[in-house]
Amino acid sequence: MNPESTAATPHANAIAAEARGTRPQRTDGHPEIPFTPLVASLPASIPFVGPEALERARNAPFRARIGANESAFGASPAALAAMHDAAMRISWYGDPEVHDLRQALAGHHGVRADEICVDAGIDSLLGLAVRMTVMLDTPVVTSLGAYPTFNYHVAGSGGLLHPVPYRDDLEDLDALAERQAETGAPLVYVANPDNPMGTWHDASRLQDFIDRLPGNTLLLLDEAYGEFAPAGVLPAMDTDDPRVLRLRTFSKAYGMAGARIGYAIGHRDLITGLNKIRNHFGVSRLAQAGAMAALGDQAFLAGVQSAVADGRRRIADFAAGLGLTSLPSATNFVTVDLGGVERARAMLESLAAADVFIRMPGVAPLNRCVRIGVGREDEMTVFEQAFARALPTLPRPPG
Amino acid sequence: MNPESTAATPHANAIAAEARGTRPQRTDGHPEIPFTPLVASLPASIPFVGPEALERARNAPFRARIGANESAFGASPAALAAMHDAAMRISWYGDPEVHDLRQALAGHHGVRADEICVDAGIDSLLGLAVRMTVMLDTPVVTSLGAYPTFNYHVAGSGGLLHPVPYRDDLEDLDALAERQAETGAPLVYVANPDNPMGTWHDASRLQDFIDRLPGNTLLLLDEAYGEFAPAGVLPAMDTDDPRVLRLRTFSKAYGMAGARIGYAIGHRDLITGLNKIRNHFGVSRLAQAGAMAALGDQAFLAGVQSAVADGRRRIADFAAGLGLTSLPSATNFVTVDLGGVERARAMLESLAAADVFIRMPGVAPLNRCVRIGVGREDEMTVFEQAFARALPTLPRPPG
Repeated sequence: MNPESTAATPHANAIAAEARGTRPQRTDGHPEIPFTPLVASLPASIPFVGPEALERARNAPFRARIGANESAFGASPAALAAMHDAAMRISWYGDPEVHDLRQALAGHHGVRADEICVDAGIDSLLGLAVRMTVMLDTPVVTSLGAYPTFNYHVAGSGGLLHPVPYRDDLEDLDALAERQAETGAPLVYVANPDNPMGTWHDASRLQDFIDRLPGNTLLLLDEAYGEFAPAGVLPAMDTDDPRVLRLRTFSKAYGMAGARIGYAIGHRDLITGLNKIRNHFGVSRLAQAGAMAALGDQAFLAGVQSAVADGRRRIADFAAGLGLTSLPSATNFVTVDLGGVERARAMLESLAAADVFIRMPGVAPLNRCVRIGVGREDEMTVFEQAFARALPTLPRPPG
Repeated sequence: MNPESTAATPHANAIAAEARGTRPQRTDGHPEIPFTPLVASLPASIPFVGPEALERARNAPFRARIGANESAFGASPAALAAMHDAAMRISWYGDPEVHDLRQALAGHHGVRADEICVDAGIDSLLGLAVRMTVMLDTPVVTSLGAYPTFNYHVAGSGGLLHPVPYRDDLEDLDALAERQAETGAPLVYVANPDNPMGTWHDASRLQDFIDRLPGNTLLLLDEAYGEFAPAGVLPAMDTDDPRVLRLRTFSKAYGMAGARIGYAIGHRDLITGLNKIRNHFGVSRLAQAGAMAALGDQAFLAGVQSAVADGRRRIADFAAGLGLTSLPSATNFVTVDLGGVERARAMLESLAAADVFIRMPGVAPLNRCVRIGVGREDEMTVFEQAFARALPTLPRPPG
């Protein structure tokens, strides 16, 4: 095993028992429950604590909710109206084929409808893609500090994560390709634009990376923030290439995170794989109707894109005015460098005390930064005041 | 292997390869995709074809949609209002802990909030419960002709189904317990009230069955239709018993199938297991708000229960007037005996030609029947006219 690999399933005995097909007996006082050894070995941890849980813990609401990369600009009025109309048929299941939306998305992206799978958000699609390719001890390559929910799903299938450090706050495509080659990992995860750093690779650079992957490999290309990226960042659609599954969502730029709807685009054999294991009646009828209308309102989307670009500039200028560096961003958040993890943690706590919810990357060296979402005008004002007040109180930078 | 068992994963070679940890090479002209051998071996079939797909195929809408056990009476106006209000925050993810609804459900059922897991409907919860207990070749016991989506999830985890025939149109609890004992299956599925037959066992009979199950066994007790059952059918809540996971939904009596929200009640160690693998941000913000309000409007629920009871009587009386037997039902549908599978199929086709959507059980001897959902007044009228017209045209009963 590569010394940098992370055993997603820590209990080797339980795993060995699963491989033998036997079930270990519980001896810890808990009742006997016939969990698989894998599930028994998983931690009870969760990928993220939600802002509502933080509000309950502090017994006060946030005034600025700019930590979960949600849209500050809501959904298209057309989407809201469509969901309102669809609520009149809320007692009917949604179309399990999600036919109309897939047709519309096919036209939008210039692909075929059978090259699209709609599901209840990218998180759910990540779970399906992992289940479809990962079994016990399957090596999986991702970046160290990238999306924790992907890691959560890999752990849930018993895979072994091989995390590759970022380089200069970018996902290190060369190192990712090398790690894939070393481990023979069938599954690789890349987010472009990236979360939590907001950085990106150009389409040509990404295509070079894809071209280096062997045939029997699947790249999950998470483009949750794709609508915020400038031209030339998203590779051309190429559904003839079975190595790439593109993941898109209505949760970010379209402002519909609370509705739970996203989609995957790829070779139709990849889509068939997802269809073999997905929850066919899992996409809400309201979400389907809302997404159709949202996709049809590209003028609203353009307004959001413009407002988000303005918001990013505002955060970057604000940080620069305080003598701080922020990373260039192709997302709806800006990652601000505070120069050290203690300073970042202290800022998180100071902002929370001032009713501002933000998050920070989870691992070094990314965790010297904090991640600021573009908020509404009132949220930006609350944030700026609290941040400026907190900055002089932080521990001194290391060195 | 028991001769009556059904290999959910038909390709023995692929399974053997998975057990060895190797991956077979594709030789069928499709691109190399690194599917697990299990997923590669799964059929591309789906549990149900939705009514929208049937409408697209016939190029005409149904006038009576009474085949998917959906509610004809919609959701509570309070639930609709709550969803409308929640849509103003549609850009925010739902609370991943589903805290408020779990608290309300705990009060409603007299259990603790940590004995409840809310997820995006029973279908999703079935998938989680299967993943939590089933691995390659794990035996699983269910009834022959029971819920196909459960079987779909078992296949998706590589389990081996041991289906037990119904007895007198009831799930055969004695035979299910015997089959569990024979196979050592860690997982057993029972729906009470039953779908597709609508029949039920009393709580005391079901509790006797539960008491026969060994400690290291999990019964998935699907109570999707529980709100329609008369008093004395649902066993008392006993979350001290780790052998039973109760599954409930807002899709049926609460009329919110299109919102995707249901829940499991059980020993807190069972709930912890679900929490280890569930999609934490998977429950729509709208659905959470709607379910809270729906639960709070028990007067609306009582009206639905009464209207459904009236509708069942109407269907049974109508069938009796035509000389047909219908089964007693504790659900929102009535199963009508047509005396033979050819007659049932012909009735399905005749009704579809008359714009009436119904379904029928999938296997003998249940498939001598058709399943009629309680519909709105206009739907019942369309159904009755079409059914009465079709009946004399059916093939003669066998024998």
